[in-house]
Amino acid sequence: MRAGAELTVIANTGDDFEHLGLSISPDIDSLVYALAGLADRERGWGRANETWSFMSALGALGGETWFNLGDGDLAMHVLRSEHLAAGAPLSAVTAAMARQLGLGARVIPATDQRLRTLVETETGRLAFQHYFVRERTAPRIAGFTFEGAEAALPAPGALEALGDAERIVICPSNPYISIDPILAVAGYREAVQSAVCVSPLIGGRAVKGPTAKMMSELGLEPSSQAVARHYRGLIRALVIDEADAHEAPSVEAEGVRAVVAPTLMTGPKDAERLAHIVLEA
Amino acid sequence: MRAGAELTVIANTGDDFEHLGLSISPDIDSLVYALAGLADRERGWGRANETWSFMSALGALGGETWFNLGDGDLAMHVLRSEHLAAGAPLSAVTAAMARQLGLGARVIPATDQRLRTLVETETGRLAFQHYFVRERTAPRIAGFTFEGAEAALPAPGALEALGDAERIVICPSNPYISIDPILAVAGYREAVQSAVCVSPLIGGRAVKGPTAKMMSELGLEPSSQAVARHYRGLIRALVIDEADAHEAPSVEAEGVRAVVAPTLMTGPKDAERLAHIVLEA
Repeated sequence: MRAGAELTVIANTGDDFEHLGLSISPDIDSLVYALAGLADRERGWGRANETWSFMSALGALGGETWFNLGDGDLAMHVLRSEHLAAGAPLSAVTAAMARQLGLGARVIPATDQRLRTLVETETGRLAFQHYFVRERTAPRIAGFTFEGAEAALPAPGALEALGDAERIVICPSNPYISIDPILAVAGYREAVQSAVCVSPLIGGRAVKGPTAKMMSELGLEPSSQAVARHYRGLIRALVIDEADAHEAPSVEAEGVRAVVAPTLMTGPKDAERLAHIVLEA
Repeated sequence: MRAGAELTVIANTGDDFEHLGLSISPDIDSLVYALAGLADRERGWGRANETWSFMSALGALGGETWFNLGDGDLAMHVLRSEHLAAGAPLSAVTAAMARQLGLGARVIPATDQRLRTLVETETGRLAFQHYFVRERTAPRIAGFTFEGAEAALPAPGALEALGDAERIVICPSNPYISIDPILAVAGYREAVQSAVCVSPLIGGRAVKGPTAKMMSELGLEPSSQAVARHYRGLIRALVIDEADAHEAPSVEAEGVRAVVAPTLMTGPKDAERLAHIVLEA
């Protein structure tokens, strides 16, 4: 990134949910923690130096404990819930939190309206976090529904940020549950046409999360080509890992330029190197 | 207490409040923690082995930090808020929590309706916790209003428990802010006529809390006689400390039998000894 360049992140809100009476936005919080330097890198989610007294007491009281909420993390959920209940839009609540934590980047929720990823499985429809956390992605999936997407509008500033952006990057995320919910909101699909996407797969496997498993269950081969086909007409380039260099021709056959680079990020240095490659792509 | 005797505690709900979107019932929680063996005896409030990550994160997010909420303690508030919002009465929520924690005793909130102690001060009316915690009882008081008391009904089972009780004890509590809110609900005043009260004062001072300060501000001498007069016609005996034995005649002049006993409780043994004295009074 250019020195002084500004970063705006559009956050998926399809996996937001209400739990224990609290409004929880896992993707927003992960982004905020990462950008504020508060994330627990080893655990891969939540806050560093977290404590778990709440969960322990909740369990003793017979409360639902399938979704782990760290003690410090609870501050985000409690404050957000309070402000949303008072009528503040999610984008304003998120911006205020980011400002309080001194974030240099902007985090904008995909939408201020209610958007919920529902997972169609063999055993019926599941709310996203029930599928993802409670059931640990065990049920075979058949597809996804983005409830509320039709009535949802991009949050204030989101389309403007995409319109003004020198570069638009689709991070190595799960296309089906992390990116598609955003693209389901009217306006985003048109706004990201010049995006560069980093493939979430390396050697047919996802570094983290169930992307490859989902692709198999959806009848797709977990390959760079399948990712390119998914985003066909939406992105101008797909960054694929060196291990998948042989897939470059099949990616380009989808009308998407293939950029081969080391995409595995094990720390800030890898991430910075990949960011440079993406921005130059 | 007789072996096998049952204990029912009627809890003050006048200092309940809504904070950060949560429904907080400090007196109920203190009773539940004490009866479950979870209370922090040294601190004098909240749970033992508590952590404070929530407050720390809340402060970093710019949230209100004048009311301390421990991480484990939050489980009570979050669960209670969720169930109250779903329409459950406070008494049912409290009973379920007590059952989960294995309490041998019953804890019944004074009322399921909204009851709020408002403090009339020189500088205006303050919500109870604003006076008590945020302002640290600094403003001079002129009196109290128990908002909602007129429309409130005793919670299910409370009057029955008092009617069936072999002994009714008014614990050494602040008469104005801990006992009067309960007595302001129709039915309680008649139901406690045979109660024995333990004076909250020893040598004109409260062991804990602002009872003596309040009495002075209300123009009352902080004495056993003033406590007896406050409860005149409501209790049959007042247990006063040995240090106040000389006040026995003035207590009895109020038509209340004076029982002189060591009333300072520094641990479970003192408490048990005092309980025996009260039950035999």
